Amino acid sequence: MSDDTNASDLYDRVRNEVPSELDVTDVQYEGPDLVIYTETAREFARDSDILGTLAHALRKRITIRPVPGTQSSPDEAEAVIHDVVPDDAKIQDLEFHSSIGEVLIKAEKPGLVIGQRGSTIREISQEVGWNPEVVRTPPMESSTVDNVRNYLTQERAERRDFLVDVGEQIHGTPENDVDWVRVTTLGCCREVGRASFVLHTPNTKILVDCGDKPGAEGEVPYLHVPEAMPLPELDAVVLTHAHLDHSALLPLLFKYGYDGPIYTTEPTRDLMGLLQLDYLDVASKEGRTPPYSSEQVRQAIKHTIPIGYGDVTDIAPDVKLTMHNAGHILGSATAHFHVGNGFHNVVFSGDVHYEPTRLFNGAVNDFPRAETMIMESTYGRRNDYQTETEESEARVRQIIRETYDRDGTVVIPAFAVGRSQELMLVLEEAMREDEIPTMPIYLDGMIREATAIHTAYPEYLRDGLRRRILHEDENPFMAEQFHQVDGGGAMREEIASGEPCIILSTSGMVTGGPIMSWLELLGPDADNTLLFVGYQAEGTLGRRIESGRTEVSLEGGSGRAERLTLYCRIESVSGFSGHADRAGLEQYVEEMNPRPERILCVHGDDQATDQLSSALYQQYDIRTHQPKNLETFRFP
Amino acid sequence: MSDDTNASDLYDRVRNEVPSELDVTDVQYEGPDLVIYTETAREFARDSDILGTLAHALRKRITIRPVPGTQSSPDEAEAVIHDVVPDDAKIQDLEFHSSIGEVLIKAEKPGLVIGQRGSTIREISQEVGWNPEVVRTPPMESSTVDNVRNYLTQERAERRDFLVDVGEQIHGTPENDVDWVRVTTLGCCREVGRASFVLHTPNTKILVDCGDKPGAEGEVPYLHVPEAMPLPELDAVVLTHAHLDHSALLPLLFKYGYDGPIYTTEPTRDLMGLLQLDYLDVASKEGRTPPYSSEQVRQAIKHTIPIGYGDVTDIAPDVKLTMHNAGHILGSATAHFHVGNGFHNVVFSGDVHYEPTRLFNGAVNDFPRAETMIMESTYGRRNDYQTETEESEARVRQIIRETYDRDGTVVIPAFAVGRSQELMLVLEEAMREDEIPTMPIYLDGMIREATAIHTAYPEYLRDGLRRRILHEDENPFMAEQFHQVDGGGAMREEIASGEPCIILSTSGMVTGGPIMSWLELLGPDADNTLLFVGYQAEGTLGRRIESGRTEVSLEGGSGRAERLTLYCRIESVSGFSGHADRAGLEQYVEEMNPRPERILCVHGDDQATDQLSSALYQQYDIRTHQPKNLETFRFP
Repeated sequence: MSDDTNASDLYDRVRNEVPSELDVTDVQYEGPDLVIYTETAREFARDSDILGTLAHALRKRITIRPVPGTQSSPDEAEAVIHDVVPDDAKIQDLEFHSSIGEVLIKAEKPGLVIGQRGSTIREISQEVGWNPEVVRTPPMESSTVDNVRNYLTQERAERRDFLVDVGEQIHGTPENDVDWVRVTTLGCCREVGRASFVLHTPNTKILVDCGDKPGAEGEVPYLHVPEAMPLPELDAVVLTHAHLDHSALLPLLFKYGYDGPIYTTEPTRDLMGLLQLDYLDVASKEGRTPPYSSEQVRQAIKHTIPIGYGDVTDIAPDVKLTMHNAGHILGSATAHFHVGNGFHNVVFSGDVHYEPTRLFNGAVNDFPRAETMIMESTYGRRNDYQTETEESEARVRQIIRETYDRDGTVVIPAFAVGRSQELMLVLEEAMREDEIPTMPIYLDGMIREATAIHTAYPEYLRDGLRRRILHEDENPFMAEQFHQVDGGGAMREEIASGEPCIILSTSGMVTGGPIMSWLELLGPDADNTLLFVGYQAEGTLGRRIESGRTEVSLEGGSGRAERLTLYCRIESVSGFSGHADRAGLEQYVEEMNPRPERILCVHGDDQATDQLSSALYQQYDIRTHQPKNLETFRFP
Repeated sequence: MSDDTNASDLYDRVRNEVPSELDVTDVQYEGPDLVIYTETAREFARDSDILGTLAHALRKRITIRPVPGTQSSPDEAEAVIHDVVPDDAKIQDLEFHSSIGEVLIKAEKPGLVIGQRGSTIREISQEVGWNPEVVRTPPMESSTVDNVRNYLTQERAERRDFLVDVGEQIHGTPENDVDWVRVTTLGCCREVGRASFVLHTPNTKILVDCGDKPGAEGEVPYLHVPEAMPLPELDAVVLTHAHLDHSALLPLLFKYGYDGPIYTTEPTRDLMGLLQLDYLDVASKEGRTPPYSSEQVRQAIKHTIPIGYGDVTDIAPDVKLTMHNAGHILGSATAHFHVGNGFHNVVFSGDVHYEPTRLFNGAVNDFPRAETMIMESTYGRRNDYQTETEESEARVRQIIRETYDRDGTVVIPAFAVGRSQELMLVLEEAMREDEIPTMPIYLDGMIREATAIHTAYPEYLRDGLRRRILHEDENPFMAEQFHQVDGGGAMREEIASGEPCIILSTSGMVTGGPIMSWLELLGPDADNTLLFVGYQAEGTLGRRIESGRTEVSLEGGSGRAERLTLYCRIESVSGFSGHADRAGLEQYVEEMNPRPERILCVHGDDQATDQLSSALYQQYDIRTHQPKNLETFRFP
């Protein structure tokens, strides 16, 4: 698709498109982006249309960089910026990176730094010649966001070399005609967990996701099959979202020598770092040898090239990737691959929620073209219908009231990322509107940190919620009844023996983490309630308890298994899942534009994928498959 | 499956099974066989049961070899052999190979050398201490058979080293548990041609067939996909039969560095050598660069380990192969793979003919177990019914009579191997029984040589035919009306302008070879008949003519294309195919014991594989697939 066979051809093409009065000193690819170095950065900023015109003509994202020495001094620039940007923007910090001519502006309200249609930011460029990049200071402090940003700042030089390498690879000439696309299933087929696929063309190999399997730590993706090997020769990795069943083993690739890019959204990058570090932590606490170290988590972050929803991005000479909102968790994406010049389009749904929720808009199912889809099937069984959200919320409120009336505590196992935030919104509203008594809501595990990351990327949230978060006094996540459990075992014992309260605790499928302590502390008391609100995968303790098992065995801190009998009330309320239910999955396909010719039903157990693939075939006359792990499909 | 973790364990196991009065000096694997070296070879020969008992106990084919120096001298031995073997056996030659203690006895009637239940051969062993191996001197001289035997004799030492290496590999301990089997389609899906598959387990990769595509020389199997690469690391190659669409590119593997074994039947080894050398010849005559040289054909022959029908053979630590008669051509086989210790069984039908023909018994479809079958579908379309053989033969006789009455000549394009011999039997009988006038039958191309190879392996032919071949005066292939065209263009012109006759000429699909000259010489004359009796693949000139095209373009000797209009009568008679028709394919599955759980329909065009897979699913409730090239299936 690219015909920039060498650097001078590329320069000529750019020079040709840029008005002659503007200087083009040099051009270079950095990852998917085209960087233009110029002595006339100020003049570039003056013409509000030029970037759009260039991007359209060259079919690339364009970055303008001043040639070093052509900008104002940092001191001068700082004065100008503070002068031009209104005080309400609350600029926290400025960082000048002279090697790339960029000034990083950290502000609480980045929109005010950017201005209407970018007018303020363009004014800064014109005045100082530096390239402003604006980031949001999250309303809730997030150590993850801070650490990732600091780390990337520190690694800027090395990262730029990496991006130039990736840019060269992406914009090379493909060696072979594209006359096939193949997808290999490395996991996640007829099971929920270890999502991982290889998308290959005659020129390119891309890994999509690389997760673990909750409740079955040994069962990792089949990375050693020849379709994936050798791992260092993969051209790219794409991550649909940060949950560990999609992301846990990404850092392992770097241990095995991979040093290419990971494409994902910015919030997914941060969340994956948080969850992977926790994954290592849990493994070592449980006495397992973690498969990689935190150094590889940092490698994964350093190699991430973030792309926003809807940005059509070259990731190989014959593959363009576009990520779209999948409605599942913060930053979750459906990955659309356009292969060859109009040859074939493959969509990986990732985990999807089709209806909008309190947190997110519904999954996007509108594409320029989409012949083949690899689709999640978590709730694909014939009768996997979730109750309506309103009804579910009413049921949760009722259970909480009933437990409160018995002087009991409600403990809710929840994924740190996704359902916890949804529940926080439900509980905050219910207390605010007096539908349940106001009582403390304790967040245990990484829930608070994950929530803070949500507030750093409000543009990924649903419109109304975004507005509320950006007004501090309305930010529902900062309501005063939320408390972080940060006092360890002693604090938990105190809470458990205290007044009625609500506890949200990880892990969401009761496979480890602080929920195990809560089970031990609260499970034996019939007045308490254990409330499941999320999908419990086969093989997890959560699933066993949900299926009626009350005799459970917990791994004690000492490594001994302790027997425990649960006398507490056990309830499940559906409708809070981050996954579309059976009706949602059908509707997602029915309303998809265009409808794919072929669907592979994955990410569901044997029955779910079987029943969903049969139903989609019968209802929509789409060719459907129920793949097994270790299979390779060829398209078209 | 093997637990002979080291040589001394193996020695102990053998020593344990052998009566104590017999010496066991050493034991060693050579390929799949277990070789016992002994100072008491004569005593081993005395006990007629011992080899069977050992083979059963050790589950291996056993070879007994005398320790060098313990045998009679060659002169003494020669005298004994001539004394013990009856003169009727017609011994032609004796070769003594002292390094392996073997005497090769070439005889016209090997059965008389072997004796009733091996009594004569055992007597020789007892008397001389040499290990007799008996081969048949073919009734018709075959340069192929001679060349292959001479070449293998010459390479004996190197071949033994090779066999020892292979033996070590086969009998090693598998590294991984066998919890899956995969089959990758490298060709032959939704098309006829370039048959090639990879069968892989967690320990082993086996290539099954490696053919070209008639009429589309550029379309070779997808050997470069990761499932097959790197080729030198393949553990074994299995060849179902010698036709070029299954065998043409096997020598290429050796060019790419493969140096492992090829398992196939003995006649397939010889036929494949013949056809591959012709393939090189045709390529160079047509001005194409052959993909390999005759040296690689020799390599392929040297690396072939022949196995007989029904011999269960270890070919990898976790795979046993058994080849069964497929009824298609001489030596053609259905390959049955037993994977793991009872884990899964995969059958590659190869090309099959289910009904017995004049030449061969019908295909075997009885297996100990068979969960998955990869099945040919050449005549898989709804209405692909061939006429009954008797009717077909009557029709051929009629066409010949009619053409003869018009003073015309019948020219029949035929595969050198298979249908030519079938037709020879039909024509010989028809002339003998005066159903058609006796006239010359000219064999052009390699038909005579291929026929001679048939007579070297009569045990692979149908019972009645075998008996006739072994009695020289009844050998139908040696009837006097058969003449070889060995005088080039001048002889062809003379024949074409002479008396009515019948011509059988290669290639069978009119894609090259002498048939092109016959078309040029006989096609313009309305009195002649061009008679198709075999499958014409899409893309071949044969298919185009069969579909009604009479304006054809021939590649002249000079490389120029010559236009030619066919005025001759053009007829097709089905029923002579080496392939089962639609009814035969259905019956083959219906009567299969046990019926497979899953069938992949390959080796047929898009319609044929589609319609056959639908029909088998509907009729027998078997899970069927219509694979594409480049797909990987996982079993169970």
